[in-house]
Amino acid sequence: MQPEATIGIDIGGTNTKIGVVGSGGNILAQGGMSTEAYRGRSLESFLEDLHGEAEKLLSQAGSPKLLGIGIGAPNGNYYRGSIEYAPNLPWHGRHPLVEMFGQHFQVPICLTNDAKAAALGEMVYGAAKGMKNFIVITLGTGVGSGIVINGQLVYGHGGFAGELGHNTIVPDGRPCTCGRKGCLESYCSARGIRQTAVELLEASDAPTSMRTHMGEKFSTVHIAEAAQQGDPIALEVFERTGRYLAMELSNAIGFSEPEAIFLFGGIMRSGDLLLEPVRRHTEERLLCIYREKVRILPSAFEGDEAAILGASALIVSEMTNTRSANSAPAIIH
Amino acid sequence: MQPEATIGIDIGGTNTKIGVVGSGGNILAQGGMSTEAYRGRSLESFLEDLHGEAEKLLSQAGSPKLLGIGIGAPNGNYYRGSIEYAPNLPWHGRHPLVEMFGQHFQVPICLTNDAKAAALGEMVYGAAKGMKNFIVITLGTGVGSGIVINGQLVYGHGGFAGELGHNTIVPDGRPCTCGRKGCLESYCSARGIRQTAVELLEASDAPTSMRTHMGEKFSTVHIAEAAQQGDPIALEVFERTGRYLAMELSNAIGFSEPEAIFLFGGIMRSGDLLLEPVRRHTEERLLCIYREKVRILPSAFEGDEAAILGASALIVSEMTNTRSANSAPAIIH
Repeated sequence: MQPEATIGIDIGGTNTKIGVVGSGGNILAQGGMSTEAYRGRSLESFLEDLHGEAEKLLSQAGSPKLLGIGIGAPNGNYYRGSIEYAPNLPWHGRHPLVEMFGQHFQVPICLTNDAKAAALGEMVYGAAKGMKNFIVITLGTGVGSGIVINGQLVYGHGGFAGELGHNTIVPDGRPCTCGRKGCLESYCSARGIRQTAVELLEASDAPTSMRTHMGEKFSTVHIAEAAQQGDPIALEVFERTGRYLAMELSNAIGFSEPEAIFLFGGIMRSGDLLLEPVRRHTEERLLCIYREKVRILPSAFEGDEAAILGASALIVSEMTNTRSANSAPAIIH
Repeated sequence: MQPEATIGIDIGGTNTKIGVVGSGGNILAQGGMSTEAYRGRSLESFLEDLHGEAEKLLSQAGSPKLLGIGIGAPNGNYYRGSIEYAPNLPWHGRHPLVEMFGQHFQVPICLTNDAKAAALGEMVYGAAKGMKNFIVITLGTGVGSGIVINGQLVYGHGGFAGELGHNTIVPDGRPCTCGRKGCLESYCSARGIRQTAVELLEASDAPTSMRTHMGEKFSTVHIAEAAQQGDPIALEVFERTGRYLAMELSNAIGFSEPEAIFLFGGIMRSGDLLLEPVRRHTEERLLCIYREKVRILPSAFEGDEAAILGASALIVSEMTNTRSANSAPAIIH
């Protein structure tokens, strides 16, 4: 029997990742292309080249039977199958991505945003297998979230549910890139964590390896390195980041009482440096009925793998009918 | 054909309301008994008398065929069918209410808390008919919530989801009865609203009718009366209450992107006095993708009617299979 596979595509502002995924969640072939290189060029030309890359990878994977294609993209709307006003993509405005890409393939295609895809990846292939109620928080350039309730991804009335990164944790707090103030993202994105470090460094004269990295290239990697060496200021950055994150997690638990919350992103390579304070502060902040009941765990995935498996999981979960009972998604047959 | 009916029971700290509800949501007979009178007496004796009251009302309603019984009670756990550590009921600890009451009836019985019942009442009989994604906020002695996503009430992993009243809106804010600080309830419960009024009155010398009501009996009714007469301090109480509520509503929208949020409770009799500032502040606080999309509406119900219809809706929705896909509830056949 011809083996079966799905394709998972993650369209990011800088790069696009693509993989052919076997039915067990094994990546059979994997590639990518620059998204940035298409600035000033049409979405059609991008999708044409993406189609070529997909065909090449399918052939590399031994030409399995293609069951469907899942796509994760910033501001990807599940219901409409469109990318809408994504500030970091070369194509502004609203574009019917699923319909356009469907001209190249005769299989179901489905779209959602990257954080929702990450949650589906965790449910179908990862650490949330068998769980019906959980949340994935993606910590990166931005802070995103994918929420699963009763075994279904929460899309909301219009397809835009799950923007926990832009929930307010500090009234009138730090300015956020969204134009509002005090959002979780302004404290726990890579930029937010860096800002916490800069604020602490400016308020202190203590020597720390972080000072040698100050400037444009200063990143959370430098903060993690310093913390691993016991640097008190760097440890305080993780302590505060954990506290900020706990402020949102404890409220999210009051909303949906998940079994577990998974944290995903490069910062999780620092392991317990972030996990320990997040767990401690969340537990301290919880209403008594929730205490010692919600696990906070690292994602099972890292980087490209998560993006591809998440997008693949989107189409797999559509086909196995775990999808939202709310409304038909934008899916092309 | 013999007409069919359900029984809805709302067990409150002070009184218990009970009604026989026809299939169209019409209350055929309605009664009640004191809950408080059973302080120092057993739950068994209460349930025996409640059974007597139910039989009497069924007879008054013309002896319809009883399909099932829904019960709303503080700290009522849907999965376990038990009331658990409810501070305001005469029976402390954990009690298997559904199992105990099932000894009197050979029909399905189902239990949840009062705010979740209110949400089901709104979905089955009220203003949320046909909606798949909405939230009901109950504003009373406490602040509760019932959340519906994809047409299903959100119970969470352990049956305790939807405690938006105890989500933090002001870090290190007002002490709350739960022992934590800055909860929505500490600002928007009847007590919280009164406290806002007292704080404003203490900071001002302006004459206002509210001063004549100061003391134990000072209530939100006096604040609403003053506001209706244009009293600036009373209007400021509603303005602030609206802003506090908006802080939580805007975050709840970021979580589940509901189609509508319904506000329920005696304070809603004040109509636009609260609705207008809640709507304005919520809209101002929303992330751009949600603006002008989520309606904030008064509940279709008032008082006893809501409690009885909500409890009835619980058992109706169980029987029509709109219930949680998560796990079988505690239901006795």
